[in-house]
Amino acid sequence: MLGKTEIRALLDARRPNYALERDLYCDPGVFEADLEQIWYKEWLFAIPAVQLTKTGAYATLQIGAYPVVIVRGADGAIRAFHNVCRHRGQRLCAKETGSAPKIVCPYHQWTYELDGRLLYAKDMQQSFDPAAHGLKPVACKTIGGMVFVCLADTPPDTALLEEKLSTYLAPSGIAEAKVAFTSTIVEKGNWKLVLENNRECYHCGGSHPSLCRTYSDSPTMTAMEGPDSAAPEILEHWKRCEEAGLPSRFTNEPKMQWRLARIPLLNNAESYTMSTKRAVNKLMGQMPFFDAGSLLFYHYPNSWNHFLADHAIVFRVLPVSATETLVTTTWLVPKDAVEGEDYNLKELTEVWEATNDEDRRVVEENQKGILSPAYEPGPYSTVVEEGVIQFIDWYCDLMSARLAPRPALAAE
Amino acid sequence: MLGKTEIRALLDARRPNYALERDLYCDPGVFEADLEQIWYKEWLFAIPAVQLTKTGAYATLQIGAYPVVIVRGADGAIRAFHNVCRHRGQRLCAKETGSAPKIVCPYHQWTYELDGRLLYAKDMQQSFDPAAHGLKPVACKTIGGMVFVCLADTPPDTALLEEKLSTYLAPSGIAEAKVAFTSTIVEKGNWKLVLENNRECYHCGGSHPSLCRTYSDSPTMTAMEGPDSAAPEILEHWKRCEEAGLPSRFTNEPKMQWRLARIPLLNNAESYTMSTKRAVNKLMGQMPFFDAGSLLFYHYPNSWNHFLADHAIVFRVLPVSATETLVTTTWLVPKDAVEGEDYNLKELTEVWEATNDEDRRVVEENQKGILSPAYEPGPYSTVVEEGVIQFIDWYCDLMSARLAPRPALAAE
Amino acid sequence: MLGKTEIRALLDARRPNYALERDLYCDPGVFEADLEQIWYKEWLFAIPAVQLTKTGAYATLQIGAYPVVIVRGADGAIRAFHNVCRHRGQRLCAKETGSAPKIVCPYHQWTYELDGRLLYAKDMQQSFDPAAHGLKPVACKTIGGMVFVCLADTPPDTALLEEKLSTYLAPSGIAEAKVAFTSTIVEKGNWKLVLENNRECYHCGGSHPSLCRTYSDSPTMTAMEGPDSAAPEILEHWKRCEEAGLPSRFTNEPKMQWRLARIPLLNNAESYTMSTKRAVNKLMGQMPFFDAGSLLFYHYPNSWNHFLADHAIVFRVLPVSATETLVTTTWLVPKDAVEGEDYNLKELTEVWEATNDEDRRVVEENQKGILSPAYEPGPYSTVVEEGVIQFIDWYCDLMSARLAPRPALAAE
Ligand code: FES
Ligand code: FES
Ligand code: FES
Ligand SMILES: [Fe+3]
Ligand SMILES: [Fe+3]
Ligand SMILES: [Fe+3]
Repeated sequence: MLGKTEIRALLDARRPNYALERDLYCDPGVFEADLEQIWYKEWLFAIPAVQLTKTGAYATLQIGAYPVVIVRGADGAIRAFHNVCRHRGQRLCAKETGSAPKIVCPYHQWTYELDGRLLYAKDMQQSFDPAAHGLKPVACKTIGGMVFVCLADTPPDTALLEEKLSTYLAPSGIAEAKVAFTSTIVEKGNWKLVLENNRECYHCGGSHPSLCRTYSDSPTMTAMEGPDSAAPEILEHWKRCEEAGLPSRFTNEPKMQWRLARIPLLNNAESYTMSTKRAVNKLMGQMPFFDAGSLLFYHYPNSWNHFLADHAIVFRVLPVSATETLVTTTWLVPKDAVEGEDYNLKELTEVWEATNDEDRRVVEENQKGILSPAYEPGPYSTVVEEGVIQFIDWYCDLMSARLAPRPALAAE
Repeated sequence: MLGKTEIRALLDARRPNYALERDLYCDPGVFEADLEQIWYKEWLFAIPAVQLTKTGAYATLQIGAYPVVIVRGADGAIRAFHNVCRHRGQRLCAKETGSAPKIVCPYHQWTYELDGRLLYAKDMQQSFDPAAHGLKPVACKTIGGMVFVCLADTPPDTALLEEKLSTYLAPSGIAEAKVAFTSTIVEKGNWKLVLENNRECYHCGGSHPSLCRTYSDSPTMTAMEGPDSAAPEILEHWKRCEEAGLPSRFTNEPKMQWRLARIPLLNNAESYTMSTKRAVNKLMGQMPFFDAGSLLFYHYPNSWNHFLADHAIVFRVLPVSATETLVTTTWLVPKDAVEGEDYNLKELTEVWEATNDEDRRVVEENQKGILSPAYEPGPYSTVVEEGVIQFIDWYCDLMSARLAPRPALAAE
Repeated sequence: MLGKTEIRALLDARRPNYALERDLYCDPGVFEADLEQIWYKEWLFAIPAVQLTKTGAYATLQIGAYPVVIVRGADGAIRAFHNVCRHRGQRLCAKETGSAPKIVCPYHQWTYELDGRLLYAKDMQQSFDPAAHGLKPVACKTIGGMVFVCLADTPPDTALLEEKLSTYLAPSGIAEAKVAFTSTIVEKGNWKLVLENNRECYHCGGSHPSLCRTYSDSPTMTAMEGPDSAAPEILEHWKRCEEAGLPSRFTNEPKMQWRLARIPLLNNAESYTMSTKRAVNKLMGQMPFFDAGSLLFYHYPNSWNHFLADHAIVFRVLPVSATETLVTTTWLVPKDAVEGEDYNLKELTEVWEATNDEDRRVVEENQKGILSPAYEPGPYSTVVEEGVIQFIDWYCDLMSARLAPRPALAAE
């Protein structure tokens, strides 16, 4: 189990454009450092806001060692709390999703308001101060219909994300959609292998027969370096979409923690379906036409998303252990779309259900190979793995900086 | 994984009347210290003696890392041994209970007398000395029909326990009862959370609908500080019972490691049944009437018990890991009670089977919440959680003392 | 978790002819040392060569942390490689056995020749050098039809093994046999307990009713100290077999890492069957008659084998964790034997399938007993456990030497 100094040494010694050393993908000390330095400090995508439609609706998630509950209050606001009773520490909400007028602890029924205040604690002594025993808050922001949480006391700034994501998502109707389906899988691989897998399509041809009907694995499709540099078919797609009121151009956080860009699908496909046609017979939000392609949005460390004209698919990644990662996929459709009438659940979900399972298998075999002491980091393709290189650079730069020894104060 | 010094620091820093710090409920080093300082040193309740009716009957249990076998000898005495062959270390008895004329090792058939002496070892060299290879004994005492074992070389004194427990249990007929049923469950929680859960009824109203038909969750029912201080209905119950020859008054070990007291049931209930009536149509031992309530007996660290007029329920707790605990419940009925005639197994067991499962669930959710780094020990209610406070004080005082550095010898 | 110094101290302090101390059978640090000093340095039996009949046939195995693949090349040669892609470390072959014209990585389809050279890597940059990214080889030797691998860079010398094993196996036809059946079991015990179990028949009478029909548990059957010292019935068996062209006499590696010797079966049995008659109606290779007994071959740390007149049974042991071991058994029959006609699979395998399962159970109970801190190493029988003593001596001597501190260089 590596300590900070050893981890920094591994990061410092890494070869640019090469995969990471074995320990960075499996050592429990590295996993602990990843949690401390990234997962407990960055904004994480949690749920689409429409998952909590009514007052008292809640969703729970486990971020490393922290159980968290997200709940919609009587005022309509969505808040997050540590899902831990202030009495003897009971986990308050055990279900993944549910609804309750108040948050009542299942152990001794201490009762909290939906805004976290302790309302009632039976049989406590006179000296007990309920005001000092409200739920501990977790930072929570809803941006463009996506709920993000952050465990840090002083979360990173989100001004640019709020500006861009709200603008780009506005026509996609995420905030007025409904959840059609959610699937959760565990991949027996380090979270960074899950991310690396997502950030390239070098593997798509060999792994994803159904996705490849509609999604191009051409490196030119994602090789964009800014709002005006892209392959001609993409530039044209951007032009057409923007004229129809859809923000589409490549935009990104300066250190590439997140990126937004709209891409066309293959062969005039409308959606990620086996037929290449729309999966839902209604348009999301203000979408002007069905062949708008996919608005791609990734946000490190834990999300990638596809916003289509007829539905959206949002992905959430959560680390479980050094070699286990939870991936939750949620399909959103227009609020008024009726299952069986406007869409068929199998048609809607089958391509990404298959794709997720295909990715799970490659990630798991990737982890098994990397666990070998004979594993030696190989070179990424600068042609088709730019996304992976960029993710790994983001990871290494962030970790190096955060694990760096504090500089000595000058002249003291 | 914490070491002794860190554990002592946590114990020293604790806030009175508050739950313990997170690590004390989950750290593997603390679990190891709990084993070394408590589980391997204190007397532990093992089985009711009547579980071993005949010569050669045995029962096995696992105390931390130690497999132990308890066996009734040809002389009628009950003895305990390390369940490990002196040849190459085979576990001798694999079953939870069984019977055998001799203890024969399943590997190479070394054969031990029921008193532990090695009788026969095939094909050993001339120089081999069987007398030096008998089974290693474990301290074992049968008190009032309950078998206790202790792994320490010099077990703690039991004079007071022997006096009180034999006296109190005498009319309850434990030594002449029979085992009607045994259930074993694993609770995914630290053993101290299992004990805390047992030592309060603050949670009963919210968790135990069937138990609450007959068992009062009023704090006045258990808030007794001595043989003459109790609520009026209890004082009256004691009077009535003692006049009928049933020792009933609150009595305890000075440091509260154990306590005996008889309580009435709710609404003139006779037993822990859904109907509130007797579960068995015969009286235990010398019990004078059916509405004698329950003689409560707990013994730290691993047992609580209910001795009723018509049956008894004995509970044994064994630690499995920092976050797993085994709880074994045994129902005893009068030896001559016939199942299907004098009692119905479902009626006899359903209330505590349900209660155990309800407790398992709250303990497991308690552990999950406490595992959060955001968990902060909250205040116990001095109104309804006195029993928990008292258990935690017992635990902390004992551990502090045993983990204390040895004082330096003066003037050397 | 013990370090090198502590392990050496345990080895140094051991009592001759006694079982090892508890930690040597269960501590994770000892397991790590066993891997580093033995499993990653010694030749290990992997598979019978006939398991890979055709070009491109492969078999995989996991040696501690190392996944390895063994493959037959277009030139007929059998080679072994680290089963890890040189790109991003994917495990290349996931199945236990399979066949492929080239080794194609399932992640991004990098394609390797059967001799390990990288043939093709799609979409790599100009600067990429395929010649520098071939599969990493693992030392591999086929001796007498048995494939051995060694993870060391400089594997130990095999001259004596090659000479003796080829000679002894020549008439047994291992290289021209076929695989009739393979079984794999996990035993929840340390690998040394699995080996100890195999190296004595003190337990056979009590555990192996079906094997004991044909296999003698008399210590005189295996107590041979050289090519001319053995019990009269064995000397006579050797004479008869050698006159028929079968090398039979006891022969061994000087430090007893391996041994070859032919023994007669009990009661003129022909094979390890319930009927004591042949299991296969054809003779292996050049075997002259059916009642040739069994040619025994063990090779530390991971194999024991029985070569009979009508079939062969080869055993491979692989360590999984400090308390888990994988045992793979393969039954070989003459290449032209037809199932259902010349042999019946149940008759062929039932004795050793039962024996393996019986051994698994004793090994698992052995581990459970040894995990007790009350376990104390007992004396081996010098009458019937000479094989165990000899294995333990081999293990301790090797480990002591390899864990010894490097001597300081004199006069520098
Ligand atoms: S732990 Fe929540 S009310 Fe007691
Ligand atoms: S281990 Fe018990 S007789 Fe051998
Ligand atoms: S990991 Fe093998 S080709 Fe990419
Ligand atoms: Fe993929
Ligand atoms: Fe309870
Ligand atoms: Fe055996």
